[in-house]
Amino acid sequence: MTPTITAFERSPDGGKGLARDMRVRWALEEVGQPYDVRLVSFSEMKEPAYRALHPFGQIPTYEEGDLVLFESGAIVFHIAERHAGLLPDDANARARAITWMFAALNTVEPPIVEREQVRYVEGDKSWYKERLPILEDRIRNRLGELSSRLGDAEWLDGAFSAGDLLMVMVLRRLDGMDILDDYPNLSAYVARGEARPAYKRAFDAQVAVFNAAPTC
Amino acid sequence: MTPTITAFERSPDGGKGLARDMRVRWALEEVGQPYDVRLVSFSEMKEPAYRALHPFGQIPTYEEGDLVLFESGAIVFHIAERHAGLLPDDANARARAITWMFAALNTVEPPIVEREQVRYVEGDKSWYKERLPILEDRIRNRLGELSSRLGDAEWLDGAFSAGDLLMVMVLRRLDGMDILDDYPNLSAYVARGEARPAYKRAFDAQVAVFNAAPTC
Repeated sequence: MTPTITAFERSPDGGKGLARDMRVRWALEEVGQPYDVRLVSFSEMKEPAYRALHPFGQIPTYEEGDLVLFESGAIVFHIAERHAGLLPDDANARARAITWMFAALNTVEPPIVEREQVRYVEGDKSWYKERLPILEDRIRNRLGELSSRLGDAEWLDGAFSAGDLLMVMVLRRLDGMDILDDYPNLSAYVARGEARPAYKRAFDAQVAVFNAAPTC
Repeated sequence: MTPTITAFERSPDGGKGLARDMRVRWALEEVGQPYDVRLVSFSEMKEPAYRALHPFGQIPTYEEGDLVLFESGAIVFHIAERHAGLLPDDANARARAITWMFAALNTVEPPIVEREQVRYVEGDKSWYKERLPILEDRIRNRLGELSSRLGDAEWLDGAFSAGDLLMVMVLRRLDGMDILDDYPNLSAYVARGEARPAYKRAFDAQVAVFNAAPTC
């Protein structure tokens, strides 16, 4: 059965592939699973009908027959569990790959999202500029630790996994912040992710949506 | 094989069970798996030997023979996958329970951690008091959505699961913020979690560590 995911009708990232549907598209492309996309507007995402699918009114959702999922991490895991290619077969290696999925989303992503959102939430406040270095130091702490662990390895733990997929996507959210360049091994890691054919197919699919959207 | 987890030698929460080892203790108690605890000091957590276990220098870690895991969400999932009691047998129900694990950690927890940490990071700044309502509004948005979804159900999706375990633990981090009381169904949900015998055993074990620690 072909799953259906939701994505922004008009992504606020300008087609850069930073929205969370990109993670799910990439995972589906890695495992070769075709999918349908239903585009939703910001107003539609706040309606009760959409909230029934996603209690927090965000994208993406994932529908497959009777199953409805939300949370990009959970959807990527669901795909990884049901298809070969995103989690190792060895039980211990699999558990470690899943650890990196949670690390990407619960340890590395929060300070990045904080920095990303502050311009919208507090951009007009008197303290805005003074807080930026505080927020960026928090990101740098995490990136320094991640960079040390990655070292000169290609991926975080052996072969490419769903943990790398989510970590690359989280690090891509640093776009426009001039931080990632200070960690050459992490920049190269992100570039390796972006060079994967499945990533490119997913990226092209989401940018096509953006380019087809009516201008405001 | 008995797993070993790490926990704070002296938890900064004063024995309230808010540190992340509590999640893992609770999961282990739910499934009846005995475990050992190795206490670590803040300075030890920053040493290379500990960083080899946990690249971000935090607690808890989980060691079981050759396997080393970190990230409380990943550890709870590892326990839930290997023992009955924390994930439903039905495939779709299981995927939904895992969705709530990710929702707890990636959607609900980040704004709560932000509010919790701000007193330490920015408590001496001129803008501190003015930012608090901004931070609390973000939490209230999430709690309102979560409260609507929970309604008058006992748990988030059918029987108690690892998703509830993590969500209850995340909501407990609101301790001292006077926010949760405004959502009676969420307060009752947390109380149901805290009333579980396995929770109580885990709580008692962590508070015993705190009470046994030497005073500074």
